[in-house]
Amino acid sequence: MTPASVRNDKNRVVAAAMRVLAAGGLPALSMRRIADELDVQVSALYWHFPNKQALLAAVSAEIVGAGSAGGGMDAVARALRDRLLMFPDGAEIVSSSLALGLLELPARTDLVSAAQAAGLDAATAEVAADTVVHYVIGCTFHEQQRVHAAIVGAADSSVDLTPAGIGTRPDGFEAGLAMVVAGVRAAASIA
Amino acid sequence: MTPASVRNDKNRVVAAAMRVLAAGGLPALSMRRIADELDVQVSALYWHFPNKQALLAAVSAEIVGAGSAGGGMDAVARALRDRLLMFPDGAEIVSSSLALGLLELPARTDLVSAAQAAGLDAATAEVAADTVVHYVIGCTFHEQQRVHAAIVGAADSSVDLTPAGIGTRPDGFEAGLAMVVAGVRAAASIA
Repeated sequence: MTPASVRNDKNRVVAAAMRVLAAGGLPALSMRRIADELDVQVSALYWHFPNKQALLAAVSAEIVGAGSAGGGMDAVARALRDRLLMFPDGAEIVSSSLALGLLELPARTDLVSAAQAAGLDAATAEVAADTVVHYVIGCTFHEQQRVHAAIVGAADSSVDLTPAGIGTRPDGFEAGLAMVVAGVRAAASIA
Repeated sequence: MTPASVRNDKNRVVAAAMRVLAAGGLPALSMRRIADELDVQVSALYWHFPNKQALLAAVSAEIVGAGSAGGGMDAVARALRDRLLMFPDGAEIVSSSLALGLLELPARTDLVSAAQAAGLDAATAEVAADTVVHYVIGCTFHEQQRVHAAIVGAADSSVDLTPAGIGTRPDGFEAGLAMVVAGVRAAASIA
């Protein structure tokens, strides 16, 4: 059993990390800055987290939340995107924790359920869930990178954002999501 | 007119950057390391590129290549992924240049053409192209992040790659791509 006071300390570290993230984004999120925020030594953080990746995984879990207000794949995808957009660099942080295998994504579980409810078998529902997750994170990461670009652009006029590349229509996410979900439905009708 | 010797110098800078990238990935790709590779001062690089973003955009253009061996959306998507996988951190570098509006993606043009050939109107073909690009970059970025995770894992046994999260099936990319392309076809049949 972990004493309640130690658990509280761990929660305080994550809460401090969320404040540092909100104020300065991922570049600000160093162990040093989090320790300063709590007015403790950096070594105190390692009592709770073996390394920065583990702390970022706890931050990622806060970002994505507990998941499941129910609904179809499109509703789950939209809710995931909203969570990622609530925090600067949310998509990049969550993407990294997923790649490290340090984060269970509640939205993925919800997507698998929604895909099965739509008629997919278990294995195909897993593929569908991963496809939607890749689309949502890919889109949102792009969007958040463009925020950085706009900030850089404000300081450096040599960065031209006019030839926008991809994904800059305001309705781009929704229209693309509709295609991905239609693809999942097509897979269900074949199965 | 830019004299040929100056153009050659610019090409030499990009070639040196590609060697640094191949050897050490994005973390190694500093102006300092590229200058060392060419045995010149860092200031010489700024003669050709106003800033690091501009140099990374030239690197991105090398990574994605000239595009178009023709084919359907799935063939174009597969070819883009293969290019991104040829270089360490290829997806992250290209994603960043796209977000900055500093890269025209030939594959996107090919995807728009392929989508129109499949029966989509011009506006819907743009959405389809962006959706496929987000899916390909999202998948490939995840895959390349996992390479880093494996390297970290080799040095740090506290990073556990077992609870794999998303996208770890070898056929995951293909199966997801099939769904996305099916969604585009569904949009074409509605149009």
